[in-house]
Amino acid sequence: MLYIVGLGLGDERDITVRGLDAVRSCSKVYMEAYTSLLSLGLDPAALANLEKLYGKEITVADREMVEERVDQVLNEAADTDVAFLVVGDPFGATTHTDLVVRAKKMGVEVKVIHNASVMNAIGVCGLQLYRYGETISIPFFTDEWRPDSFYEKIQNNRKLGLHTLCLLDIRVKEPTWESLARGKKVYEPPRFMTVNTAISQLFESYYDIRFKDHFLPAYGRDTLCIGVARLGSDDQKIVAGPMEKLLDVDFGPPLHCLIIVGETHPLEEEMLEFYMIK
Amino acid sequence: MLYIVGLGLGDERDITVRGLDAVRSCSKVYMEAYTSLLSLGLDPAALANLEKLYGKEITVADREMVEERVDQVLNEAADTDVAFLVVGDPFGATTHTDLVVRAKKMGVEVKVIHNASVMNAIGVCGLQLYRYGETISIPFFTDEWRPDSFYEKIQNNRKLGLHTLCLLDIRVKEPTWESLARGKKVYEPPRFMTVNTAISQLFESYYDIRFKDHFLPAYGRDTLCIGVARLGSDDQKIVAGPMEKLLDVDFGPPLHCLIIVGETHPLEEEMLEFYMIK
Repeated sequence: MLYIVGLGLGDERDITVRGLDAVRSCSKVYMEAYTSLLSLGLDPAALANLEKLYGKEITVADREMVEERVDQVLNEAADTDVAFLVVGDPFGATTHTDLVVRAKKMGVEVKVIHNASVMNAIGVCGLQLYRYGETISIPFFTDEWRPDSFYEKIQNNRKLGLHTLCLLDIRVKEPTWESLARGKKVYEPPRFMTVNTAISQLFESYYDIRFKDHFLPAYGRDTLCIGVARLGSDDQKIVAGPMEKLLDVDFGPPLHCLIIVGETHPLEEEMLEFYMIK
Repeated sequence: MLYIVGLGLGDERDITVRGLDAVRSCSKVYMEAYTSLLSLGLDPAALANLEKLYGKEITVADREMVEERVDQVLNEAADTDVAFLVVGDPFGATTHTDLVVRAKKMGVEVKVIHNASVMNAIGVCGLQLYRYGETISIPFFTDEWRPDSFYEKIQNNRKLGLHTLCLLDIRVKEPTWESLARGKKVYEPPRFMTVNTAISQLFESYYDIRFKDHFLPAYGRDTLCIGVARLGSDDQKIVAGPMEKLLDVDFGPPLHCLIIVGETHPLEEEMLEFYMIK
């Protein structure tokens, strides 16, 4: 049996009782590191805390391992109980659909243990979850690569009065271009996008495409946004305000995300008041 | 302190370790019954199981109590630690934003403990969560009341190629019209909408409005849909197929929800294959 266990958003105590029982019953425990490295990797004690609560050793599975050695994990799961831990929900922002498809094709039984993810915990801001449109991802721009496909999606959401959740880029264990050319991988230091960088890039996209035909502003300096850092942790930070003003707010350590607010209802506005920048 | 604790989607073991610790430390424990009555109320042992795990007596707070006596709960929370339990996530499908707003206005400290909700656990179907548009609610039609505002929302989502999550009506402790007229409340038996009723009503709306100006079909008999029952429970049921074919599938006990599928990617299709009706 392969248990895919969501760990939730905070620390080791955000696992569910069902998830904890499953992990404790497994003979092998892997943890997906792609999204978790930043939250856990910055605090070396975090992994030890997980191992202590579970009473199990954890093998951290980075992106390469998940992609290249997944068959080994699945073979183990065919014979014995294996847990694969995922920050947030197994099907939250980062998908593990591929793992499930492969397991099912190999005839390995899969049990998913759900937990909170950014996709629902973001409700804490006070905006109703059913009033969000398509979720977008904002990647780090480079000199050569400045994709702006998110612009049209934000515009579609805003035309319908809907809120837009922006997931911000995480770069963990990315090989450098130089090292790939030399044939021996050297990795970039991990990077995560701040709310401030995201907003700068949104402004850049705006200026990049404003001379296109049929340009309609999807947002501007005064568009109400909410910056969120460390959602679900004890020290989460939520600040609402005009896009331009959030540029200067220090949101602190990762992970960050951003909401571009659509049309609001009075109850949403009451809640936003508590987070509004002074 | 007021702890608003998400219980997740399955049974008592879906609470998080953090949530369990909080509940055990509280002097008073309330449970919101509006959405939970159907899952728990159908199984009288369920409440007892919660109380046993928590080692606490639970006061079930129905909708009237939450609306009328919330100040009493908040006054208690000003003096001591009070837990308010919510099925799913505190800010999932049913919102508790109002409770938080009132608490903050009274100066009562609030701590939210997140958990899975339908809004993220629905990812188990294999459709990517960031490819969903606005979520809709389908209410029970009556002879006099057949709202169809959801039709346009589905259409907007489908024009953009997005999936639509349909939350289906739950009627718990609704006073009958006759009893309201007599001035003494008598309650309707609890009702929940099945996938089958939802699809019938979608077809009814289609026929109701097809003669309107600018009518564009948002869906039809062959539109790919996914019916989901008891999401996150051990006996969850997921069946995908053309809308018309799902009309005859028995999804069993509540709660149900429905997804109208938009444009799909190959990985989504691979996953859907496992659920496809034969």
